[in-house]
Amino acid sequence: MTRVLVWNENRHEKQSPHIAALYPDGIHGALASHLRTVPGLDVRSATQDEPECGLSADRLSQTDVLVYWGHIAQNEIPDEIVDRLQRHILAGLGLVILHSACISKIATRLLGTTGMMKWRESGEHQRHWVVAPGHPIAEGVPEHFEIAQDETYGEHFDIPAPDELIFIGWSPGGEVLRSGTCYTRGLGRIFLFTPGHETYPVYHDQNVLKVIANAAKWAAKAEDREVVRGNVQPLEPLARP
Amino acid sequence: MTRVLVWNENRHEKQSPHIAALYPDGIHGALASHLRTVPGLDVRSATQDEPECGLSADRLSQTDVLVYWGHIAQNEIPDEIVDRLQRHILAGLGLVILHSACISKIATRLLGTTGMMKWRESGEHQRHWVVAPGHPIAEGVPEHFEIAQDETYGEHFDIPAPDELIFIGWSPGGEVLRSGTCYTRGLGRIFLFTPGHETYPVYHDQNVLKVIANAAKWAAKAEDREVVRGNVQPLEPLARP
Amino acid sequence: MTRVLVWNENRHEKQSPHIAALYPDGIHGALASHLRTVPGLDVRSATQDEPECGLSADRLSQTDVLVYWGHIAQNEIPDEIVDRLQRHILAGLGLVILHSACISKIATRLLGTTGMMKWRESGEHQRHWVVAPGHPIAEGVPEHFEIAQDETYGEHFDIPAPDELIFIGWSPGGEVLRSGTCYTRGLGRIFLFTPGHETYPVYHDQNVLKVIANAAKWAAKAEDREVVRGNVQPLEPLARP
Amino acid sequence: MTRVLVWNENRHEKQSPHIAALYPDGIHGALASHLRTVPGLDVRSATQDEPECGLSADRLSQTDVLVYWGHIAQNEIPDEIVDRLQRHILAGLGLVILHSACISKIATRLLGTTGMMKWRESGEHQRHWVVAPGHPIAEGVPEHFEIAQDETYGEHFDIPAPDELIFIGWSPGGEVLRSGTCYTRGLGRIFLFTPGHETYPVYHDQNVLKVIANAAKWAAKAEDREVVRGNVQPLEPLARP
Repeated sequence: MTRVLVWNENRHEKQSPHIAALYPDGIHGALASHLRTVPGLDVRSATQDEPECGLSADRLSQTDVLVYWGHIAQNEIPDEIVDRLQRHILAGLGLVILHSACISKIATRLLGTTGMMKWRESGEHQRHWVVAPGHPIAEGVPEHFEIAQDETYGEHFDIPAPDELIFIGWSPGGEVLRSGTCYTRGLGRIFLFTPGHETYPVYHDQNVLKVIANAAKWAAKAEDREVVRGNVQPLEPLARP
Repeated sequence: MTRVLVWNENRHEKQSPHIAALYPDGIHGALASHLRTVPGLDVRSATQDEPECGLSADRLSQTDVLVYWGHIAQNEIPDEIVDRLQRHILAGLGLVILHSACISKIATRLLGTTGMMKWRESGEHQRHWVVAPGHPIAEGVPEHFEIAQDETYGEHFDIPAPDELIFIGWSPGGEVLRSGTCYTRGLGRIFLFTPGHETYPVYHDQNVLKVIANAAKWAAKAEDREVVRGNVQPLEPLARP
Repeated sequence: MTRVLVWNENRHEKQSPHIAALYPDGIHGALASHLRTVPGLDVRSATQDEPECGLSADRLSQTDVLVYWGHIAQNEIPDEIVDRLQRHILAGLGLVILHSACISKIATRLLGTTGMMKWRESGEHQRHWVVAPGHPIAEGVPEHFEIAQDETYGEHFDIPAPDELIFIGWSPGGEVLRSGTCYTRGLGRIFLFTPGHETYPVYHDQNVLKVIANAAKWAAKAEDREVVRGNVQPLEPLARP
Repeated sequence: MTRVLVWNENRHEKQSPHIAALYPDGIHGALASHLRTVPGLDVRSATQDEPECGLSADRLSQTDVLVYWGHIAQNEIPDEIVDRLQRHILAGLGLVILHSACISKIATRLLGTTGMMKWRESGEHQRHWVVAPGHPIAEGVPEHFEIAQDETYGEHFDIPAPDELIFIGWSPGGEVLRSGTCYTRGLGRIFLFTPGHETYPVYHDQNVLKVIANAAKWAAKAEDREVVRGNVQPLEPLARP
């Protein structure tokens, strides 16, 4: 079983009746609810207002992949917790970064850039095209899918050139976007997926959910692996048979 | 001086009065005429109906980068000439592949895929966005530029994941496209740039011309370099001082 | 079940008693025998001297990943069969290219380079280091492993910059090598793994076999997916809710 | 003219007579002295003990590429200065990271990993192989070069998969290393080059100096470019001609 932790800032849901109506159980609730229907996933959730921001060492140790949504309260997360999260990712914990979490502390620390882009909240529909149709994250996803309304993000998107580019977004206002991108840092696999503004029901969309489930499976840590770094002796020469 | 050879199939120009009017000196003529205004470039041109398709060994040996446009007659190029061209590219000759030359023999041989995409000839305008603003090929190019009318190409575009993705195209019909992509094969640098359908005056557009000039400089062979492959002896151990 | 086809040229085994003794059931037999012990794999084998070189359309249609070893008879494979194999790979068939098959017709056609390198047959031991410890192909593989004797391959290795670099080889004679590399062409995933000269029992080595099994699982086609290319109409605008 | 700033921690040189003898003008002095012989470069130097660690806003604004060596005092650099340096790099300042500066604050912040590796100080000779012979950073560099004595670094090296891999190192003790790697962050190009332990005269080696000069030219900012991010309006549709 792949152990998924769906993590959500969970502030908008408490502050906005509109958003609470879209996500009565929070964005984390909607995501977890879908992921629980996917065979092979063992799904829990956590939110920022829990002790240690819901990201205790114990919890992270029991997690193979973290699905992460944050927006307005990202800078309230203490640096020590971000340090810990980064250590776990470098040691193999997978990370699925959703929407505005591309500018979270953990994202910018792993990627080295600001994560900023052009944006506007005008309820435009969005098309996302698969550019890597053989990739596991695109499995079962149509060649393009549409989201009825979402915040528009556009290039230039300040992310590093991804290891793999999976989706490109199109907006009617004239922008394009690298909307689904893969990275590896240390042993940890990272997928950044831009859809999901809190004011629209994006995480009830079946294609969006399919992508997130695929990404969780793709990014999940497969083994606890020890990597030796530091002061070492030369290797013994090998005797020939 | 960087020695540029602008190569053109040059058939549409002979067959269609409309295209001949757009390009009285051929597509190669329009491209060469602009490139001659760029400091540091020594520009010649050649066309497919010349002896050896304009790609003799002598000519290729005196070339640092080849700018290549082809469409309806690509399969008439003998395989031996494609073999020769490939050898020169692997030895360092740069290659700028334009528009439908993405499905040319030389392109598919270097890239390993079909080079096919979605397409339609409906005269839509196109926007191309810079996604690698620090790259030499994007130097002096605005963050996006528009082409008044061009053939629409769209994903899925059957090219390998590029070493570097420079431009993404947007069309009003709803498509996106990796429209400027970099590859290296052997010692040769390759830039694939999709704008330029023969029925529109795309190669009179200043942004398009700027990109092609940048690409010619970027892709050009810098040195004649010998790379040893084949049966070799073990290296001598180095004495410590 | 992942359908694996282990394909072997199978000429050395018939011509050399020494090699026949190392691989009484052929290199394909040794590889298939191990892969049959791996849960989830359905393994068959084929050899070059079978009808259609063992690569009939039917057989390829019933295969998710092809493990491929060839050397002295690679140029005897008719181009039509290579065409067919390439089409299947672009449509999603996975490919694991072993040792000297890096210069096979199918490899050079997919990769666009010669696949040549420095080499010598001097029975040196080889070390292969994992540089992508979080990658599925490295799962369960130690941080480095040693092969008691193998042909030495060294840089410059004329392959494209890989999408992912998994292993780097070290030889006592002073060379290094990108020895495990990943590519995607169309929908097909490709892994190139250099160990395995026919005169040494490399395919009885447990680490080598582990890598090949991991690669077969990683490269295998996951779904039959239709990708639309060609002349298309503009998309319908989406009505906002 | 490309404006190069050679920056050095400059502590070992003050503390160790042995190192002071190797580098009477400091590591920065040795590097700057060579770079001043390279046409097209305008070279200055700075050290950590200058005001603002030698990295004032003015100085960075007048720099196209920063060559950076640090080791024992890296954590003494205030975070605000690292913040500033990162902003300049994202805005286009090039960065050449030397040796142990791979674990500097600025390197780990840009790359997202620890930058740690296997290492030992045993004076082994090192071979570095060119794996990207067509790349500008390898121009004029032999297919491999040897450093008589250097600290040994080995995999696993905790860096992200580079955008381009230029050199692989070989050590007689049995290790390999991705020793020359390229990245882009924002508009800034970054080259990480591992040779150069302070106790050996590595920066008097002509091949090492050649690589650093090439890298400085490759990484240098080419233009002051404005990239728009933030809240934007939809683009105007383009009228067709």
